[in-house]
Amino acid sequence: MTENGSIQASVLGLGAMGGALAEALVRAGHGTTVWNRTPGRADALAAHGATEAASARDAVRAGRLVIVCLLDHASVREVLDPLAPDLAGRALVNVTTTTPEQSRELAEWAAAARATYLDGGILAVPHMIGKPGSSILYSGSGEVFREYRTVLDLWGTGTYFGEDAGLASLYDLALLASMYVMFAGFLHGAAMVAPSGMTARAFAGMAAPWLSAMTSGLEGFAAVVDGGDYTVAGQQSLEFSDLGDILAASAEQGVGTEVVDAVQQLIRRQIDAGHGKEGFARIIESLR
Amino acid sequence: MTENGSIQASVLGLGAMGGALAEALVRAGHGTTVWNRTPGRADALAAHGATEAASARDAVRAGRLVIVCLLDHASVREVLDPLAPDLAGRALVNVTTTTPEQSRELAEWAAAARATYLDGGILAVPHMIGKPGSSILYSGSGEVFREYRTVLDLWGTGTYFGEDAGLASLYDLALLASMYVMFAGFLHGAAMVAPSGMTARAFAGMAAPWLSAMTSGLEGFAAVVDGGDYTVAGQQSLEFSDLGDILAASAEQGVGTEVVDAVQQLIRRQIDAGHGKEGFARIIESLR
Repeated sequence: MTENGSIQASVLGLGAMGGALAEALVRAGHGTTVWNRTPGRADALAAHGATEAASARDAVRAGRLVIVCLLDHASVREVLDPLAPDLAGRALVNVTTTTPEQSRELAEWAAAARATYLDGGILAVPHMIGKPGSSILYSGSGEVFREYRTVLDLWGTGTYFGEDAGLASLYDLALLASMYVMFAGFLHGAAMVAPSGMTARAFAGMAAPWLSAMTSGLEGFAAVVDGGDYTVAGQQSLEFSDLGDILAASAEQGVGTEVVDAVQQLIRRQIDAGHGKEGFARIIESLR
Repeated sequence: MTENGSIQASVLGLGAMGGALAEALVRAGHGTTVWNRTPGRADALAAHGATEAASARDAVRAGRLVIVCLLDHASVREVLDPLAPDLAGRALVNVTTTTPEQSRELAEWAAAARATYLDGGILAVPHMIGKPGSSILYSGSGEVFREYRTVLDLWGTGTYFGEDAGLASLYDLALLASMYVMFAGFLHGAAMVAPSGMTARAFAGMAAPWLSAMTSGLEGFAAVVDGGDYTVAGQQSLEFSDLGDILAASAEQGVGTEVVDAVQQLIRRQIDAGHGKEGFARIIESLR
């Protein structure tokens, strides 16, 4: 790090997200070298002062901090495997979406290459990078997280979960699972109302504030799950939560029921096991 | 309605929700008669000035406005069928959860009994009744909605959707579908992170603001669905949305994948049909 706090960083992968990460670095005055497998993605960044490297090797050699944002785990291994000797002594931050086991595998690979490894899971879409609401989960090398904290914070609020490199991926994927399932539930509702002439936008106008308000109920479910007693008073029972009316109405409207049906199966399994009077949060027991 | 605006209302069904509706009426000074199949639920309401009727018939006869909040459609028919002659000339507001077709059937039954029928879908839990955030969807008799608007507004913000009695149920169930699916997605995520030692409450602390923020994306999906062009630039593609990593991580953690798998099937069906480069909102086409 130079006296003014600027560093030499490299970004491998200039998709929408990698490009946004690199832009935040270069705008903050850090020496930024970028590389993308297919050329032509670096022009706008170069105009801001970034250097385009001719190869991934050149990019790695130019940075103390090497950021990897590629398509998937296989792309990361394909690009980095030949560069192990070049990575020695550098900090590697991988924000490519991978499973926890893949993150741990990369951490081990990096350790063998004598690089320090930090795994990141980005909770933001590219245009949110560097803006309020962008949040990034990290795990792996606490040393890298602490040393480059001010740089990482350029992208969003960083949270560090510990030395196990798999944790950030795990928490990232768990939050993404919740999000995609919510999106599917919204689109299921939009499909239900469409035959009545309600537009998806009108439905979103009701559903967005409704779902947002209902997130306030998640902590209550969580407290019951953590307590392990699904009979605590004041909970909505599994019997009352039976989705029969929703499934019937979906069928009446000609809408496929697979997503709602999967939830109903989680509910029914607990009712059939004799827990119908217990709280809805008990469906987590159908999942483990 | 009397000169001071108070009316004679009756509430059939004193579960948690029916009790909350009756309490709001009696507290606002309306003459309120209540009835429940199993006695002993009316004591607290009687202390506030409500009258407990000895039979459903007596309750119906005591009110110009008859509110029905029972377990399900079958309970409503069982209680009301013998009372058709008593309902003539009265306004019947049914907030029992029913399917759209059941609501329409009740509307026809009420018309034959010469009662006016308004169907309601309550978007609130009992303790929210009469408080900010409580919202109630209505359809059926516009005359009943207009005449009793100030009374209905005691429970929450009312929205009227039209003379088709099934609309309120349809929109209510579509929003409930979105909610239950979101809850299941949250509990899936909580199950994923549990083996790492993260409590459900800690996960809720991340997931609630995350999901709430992500509801801001619903309008964008809706605009694409309404436009019918899933190739509009700036959308996250179906290929990028593949849930393979989430499914793999869920399996790694020993978590059942049925809910996420149902969403993945909606995605895969569109990719397999050659639409992988198009936007995520296209999964609605897998549902209709």
